[in-house]
Amino acid sequence: MTADRSFSLLTGNSTETRRVRAGGVIFREGEQADELFVIKSGYVRIQIGNRMKTDLTADDIFGEMALIDSEPRSATAVAITDVELVPISEKQFLFLVSQTPYFALRVMRTLAQRLRVTNKSLD
Amino acid sequence: MTADRSFSLLTGNSTETRRVRAGGVIFREGEQADELFVIKSGYVRIQIGNRMKTDLTADDIFGEMALIDSEPRSATAVAITDVELVPISEKQFLFLVSQTPYFALRVMRTLAQRLRVTNKSLD
Repeated sequence: MTADRSFSLLTGNSTETRRVRAGGVIFREGEQADELFVIKSGYVRIQIGNRMKTDLTADDIFGEMALIDSEPRSATAVAITDVELVPISEKQFLFLVSQTPYFALRVMRTLAQRLRVTNKSLD
Repeated sequence: MTADRSFSLLTGNSTETRRVRAGGVIFREGEQADELFVIKSGYVRIQIGNRMKTDLTADDIFGEMALIDSEPRSATAVAITDVELVPISEKQFLFLVSQTPYFALRVMRTLAQRLRVTNKSLD
């Protein structure tokens, strides 16, 4: 299935970039959420409890789950280098999903891949 | 986020219904995949290896992961009662995602909820 267009391209019209210094907490597990992030540069670690979860880098997204199901953040996100992020609000997210099927497919593919990795770690 | 329209309504124009008897295997882990299913009636068990995973019923979807990321089936699906399924081909899936943002949001929400459940079982 074709879903190869990059998140950076798909969200290219977003004007804001947020910078977080290495070591900075982007959000914490349990917090209410109203945005997801596309990583423009740098590395972000996603943690659940004290368990290391996964490291993400340029063109990955994170923080999408809380936006999709309106639950609190399921994980904590920490900058492990200086990072540049493009925040996507719920309104922008809904716009992208409705106007850009590739964006929806990329988000689905991200979730499916995370689910496969998590399922494997249960085996 | 509003994503409450039922899968049955969203896929209402699909003409085909597939019936599977209690005990029948709908697909097996590792198989190649070209469709997902909306449950019209009955109960379906999703299993990974010998571990019981989850039971699904009317208006739930399953089999979406292989369609989204073009990997083999990540789990086995077995009918635990007689079931009626609406199969959705990759072509129909892409059409629904592009024409019906609610469908895309419902699929994302399903994936996000499964990921939360799986993450919790790792704690």
